Amino acid sequence: MKKIPASCINQVVQPRPPESHKGTFGRVLVIGGNAQFGGAAIMAASAAVYSGAGLVSVATDPVNHTALHARLPEAMVIPYDDPELKKLIPTMDVVAIGPGLGIDELAETILTRALEAVTESQTLIIDGSAITLIADRQLMLTHAKTVWTPHQMEWQRLSGITIKAQDEHSNQQAAAKLPGTVIVKSHRTQIFTPTTSYENPLGTPAMATGGMGDTLVGILAGFTAQFGLNDAALCAAVYTHSAIAEALAKTNYVVLPSALIQQLPQYMQQAATTRA
Amino acid sequence: MKKIPASCINQVVQPRPPESHKGTFGRVLVIGGNAQFGGAAIMAASAAVYSGAGLVSVATDPVNHTALHARLPEAMVIPYDDPELKKLIPTMDVVAIGPGLGIDELAETILTRALEAVTESQTLIIDGSAITLIADRQLMLTHAKTVWTPHQMEWQRLSGITIKAQDEHSNQQAAAKLPGTVIVKSHRTQIFTPTTSYENPLGTPAMATGGMGDTLVGILAGFTAQFGLNDAALCAAVYTHSAIAEALAKTNYVVLPSALIQQLPQYMQQAATTRA
Amino acid sequence: MKKIPASCINQVVQPRPPESHKGTFGRVLVIGGNAQFGGAAIMAASAAVYSGAGLVSVATDPVNHTALHARLPEAMVIPYDDPELKKLIPTMDVVAIGPGLGIDELAETILTRALEAVTESQTLIIDGSAITLIADRQLMLTHAKTVWTPHQMEWQRLSGITIKAQDEHSNQQAAAKLPGTVIVKSHRTQIFTPTTSYENPLGTPAMATGGMGDTLVGILAGFTAQFGLNDAALCAAVYTHSAIAEALAKTNYVVLPSALIQQLPQYMQQAATTRA
Amino acid sequence: MKKIPASCINQVVQPRPPESHKGTFGRVLVIGGNAQFGGAAIMAASAAVYSGAGLVSVATDPVNHTALHARLPEAMVIPYDDPELKKLIPTMDVVAIGPGLGIDELAETILTRALEAVTESQTLIIDGSAITLIADRQLMLTHAKTVWTPHQMEWQRLSGITIKAQDEHSNQQAAAKLPGTVIVKSHRTQIFTPTTSYENPLGTPAMATGGMGDTLVGILAGFTAQFGLNDAALCAAVYTHSAIAEALAKTNYVVLPSALIQQLPQYMQQAATTRA
Repeated sequence: MKKIPASCINQVVQPRPPESHKGTFGRVLVIGGNAQFGGAAIMAASAAVYSGAGLVSVATDPVNHTALHARLPEAMVIPYDDPELKKLIPTMDVVAIGPGLGIDELAETILTRALEAVTESQTLIIDGSAITLIADRQLMLTHAKTVWTPHQMEWQRLSGITIKAQDEHSNQQAAAKLPGTVIVKSHRTQIFTPTTSYENPLGTPAMATGGMGDTLVGILAGFTAQFGLNDAALCAAVYTHSAIAEALAKTNYVVLPSALIQQLPQYMQQAATTRA
Repeated sequence: MKKIPASCINQVVQPRPPESHKGTFGRVLVIGGNAQFGGAAIMAASAAVYSGAGLVSVATDPVNHTALHARLPEAMVIPYDDPELKKLIPTMDVVAIGPGLGIDELAETILTRALEAVTESQTLIIDGSAITLIADRQLMLTHAKTVWTPHQMEWQRLSGITIKAQDEHSNQQAAAKLPGTVIVKSHRTQIFTPTTSYENPLGTPAMATGGMGDTLVGILAGFTAQFGLNDAALCAAVYTHSAIAEALAKTNYVVLPSALIQQLPQYMQQAATTRA
Repeated sequence: MKKIPASCINQVVQPRPPESHKGTFGRVLVIGGNAQFGGAAIMAASAAVYSGAGLVSVATDPVNHTALHARLPEAMVIPYDDPELKKLIPTMDVVAIGPGLGIDELAETILTRALEAVTESQTLIIDGSAITLIADRQLMLTHAKTVWTPHQMEWQRLSGITIKAQDEHSNQQAAAKLPGTVIVKSHRTQIFTPTTSYENPLGTPAMATGGMGDTLVGILAGFTAQFGLNDAALCAAVYTHSAIAEALAKTNYVVLPSALIQQLPQYMQQAATTRA
Repeated sequence: MKKIPASCINQVVQPRPPESHKGTFGRVLVIGGNAQFGGAAIMAASAAVYSGAGLVSVATDPVNHTALHARLPEAMVIPYDDPELKKLIPTMDVVAIGPGLGIDELAETILTRALEAVTESQTLIIDGSAITLIADRQLMLTHAKTVWTPHQMEWQRLSGITIKAQDEHSNQQAAAKLPGTVIVKSHRTQIFTPTTSYENPLGTPAMATGGMGDTLVGILAGFTAQFGLNDAALCAAVYTHSAIAEALAKTNYVVLPSALIQQLPQYMQQAATTRA
């Protein structure tokens, strides 16, 4: 298994083309945040905006509208049970579904609608409760380009491999049966693409706090919206997430997702202007 | 086409008169922000407050009241479908309509009411969905002093000139048919007044993110409220917007509208106390 | 008319007694903030908390609850039309009524209730719309120790003296007819106590922005809650408000109330630990 | 009575184990925040998150959901009168009940439910109105490991000892009749465990402001979630709270709970990486 090299950041995060507009940097839709877990969608959307996605929308429980806007006026918002969601999805470059979505019937309905609405040309990131739902209910999979972001317990549910037995070989085999790429989040996150695998050399226990996974989803959405869906972009997103956390962890016992998100524009600019 | 000179800032942003009160610096009303695009109105209003408008009110969907106040207690707020809006408009110096307004029937009703209520002595800034609505529905124009702030696609809708064909000559001709001044936003924003035209020498692709246009609308509102509606004030607003963004872009891969807005008071004070 | 001396700050803002608790520093109630002007109550309450009042409650339109807590979890809140208000008022040391209260029937009802409920031992600060209501409707005055904080137009309504004619002598005479102290806010704020008068030597046009008066009300509430109702405390509150604004105005073209409020704890600590 | 030694911080706040996840650092539930005192629950939850608890949930009046998420997207939230609360409680490591809960019938119902639902293996922190309710209504006590955090008036209600008579001996005797540990908050907070007692050598009158006690509850929850329920962890939490306040009080006349909470990650990292 290859280690993600530090140089992936510089390779991916390039100076922006001068003649560009917000459409150039991609449209992201985050679907998630029920009444209990609204913060998850807020953090994912914030990470997408702060990592440079051109336009970010959030489909969430209406109870989360105001908190989202109070923190992030840069995002747009619609109720996640709005039938218009089906028309909104095809206008997106990246759809990230799952952060704080929950696993009740409404969540399943929304997930099913989203899986039906996404198209082959779009990137679909499947996270959190959406993974659990797919594992439990055997939902029909999609033709979109898919990225799965389970933590180890969700990966157990999805792959059938217990956490203890999740070694490189078993994971690679199980990932190969799924469409797209699987990112198994742990203290050393691993990425399994259809052809190869990568391990994140970074990560700190200061990241072990609620919302850190949602933040990674937002960075993955922001990076694939701008830099396309490819191994380098995924590696760079995972690496960026941990590199910022490690830097903050030098002076912080716990790294809050909100604090990490704030650092994205500066970290990325350093990557764009220096060579590893 | 003249380049906007850096000196326009110093010329316009002068030290304030000692014996003044908030009325001296103008009353601004931002009309916009439906349930989906509330952030647009919040960012425009924030930019108006932070650029020094004396009093800023927002007419918006009630769902946005709380997020607005959570970010900007300095603003006042009324529901945008409140019939009182017609009485409020004539008490303003500057009305900016369009950020996040949407293009549905309610949006058209509100726009129509506003166009009827504004008077000759007021400055009316027409942005975003309001431009699209006027282009589509051929709404009756107003006698207010008008500033249009289309991005290139909105300018295509309004002028009939495709983005590719939007050169200086065609733009100037089309702008001349409209009352007031047209500011075509792009990576090199252009200003077409009834008599001449200016090009913004600044601008960075780090500005290509959702809400950046709404922020310019707020700065234009703040500047015309304080410094009057004249070429210099419009040029200074456009220049200020990009100059702050360029400064932030040195260390930020993407410049968030919220971050830009925070810098307005400092940037303007520097302009007021130094010579170009 | 005496100038407020810089030394008043050091005289008033003394190191706190070691054996104290939040009750030692006073209970403040801010009554204000209707659906349109909610920010006024938020800013007044914030200034009271940041200037050191021990406990701050806000009675406001319920639509403002969430924005208040999102900015200031340190405050407590009840609906301003809650009949319990009458029971809450007598438990307070300082009641500040008026910021954003409005002048409709509900506002009058609330003001009347408050005027009835306050007692002789309490300080009552009457601001903004509450002044206009009292001037217009000839409401029965209270036996509380009263501080009036009109701006020049509100002072005209209350005193009958036109802004132009508001000179020291006329103001002093008109103030003498009212119970308590009158603080006429302008670019050089004047304080008229029953026996003497003071002029604020500070103040900057960067303060001419919405919410600045509400902020002064909060500082007055915080200071009288901690330091008692006396000339020195009122002078120190007015001086502090302008001194912070002048400091910020060196680098800010406009001084936002939110920014001023943030500086209160540091400014006051400097006053408590240095001699003028 | 022993003074809490500065070294307790270093002893307790150790570098985190590398192979950990958010579950490693404990699940905290804050129950509190009625419609009037919502800020108390927000501050307690914030302190729990910023002191490093792995996952923090809040059961509160629904009116507080949005303000909580606007400040702290890292937390999860359910209505405090949701019958699901009984199922949620047993999944927690630490339950803190009381901040802003109130003392009405609903508060009593919720408290009774919580006391029934907690189990022997869980830590239960009882604060504020929950103490008053237990003192007044003689509610059945729980088998959870209990920490009481009364201020002096609440301790009077609970112990029957008037504030004046609250000396070391009487307090120790009264505490011994209660299950668990009693932390009597004052300008020199005292901790009474079943076998011994400690006095906090730190504390500043700048802490005498609303919300400071709620903040301590959150730190106690965060510390016991991570470091277990033991004398050292409780001492370290009390000490940390005051040590940060003393540091901030050097430059702030009043220390706002929000400001204190922000400093937790840095203060704890310093403790984890230096020796006293």
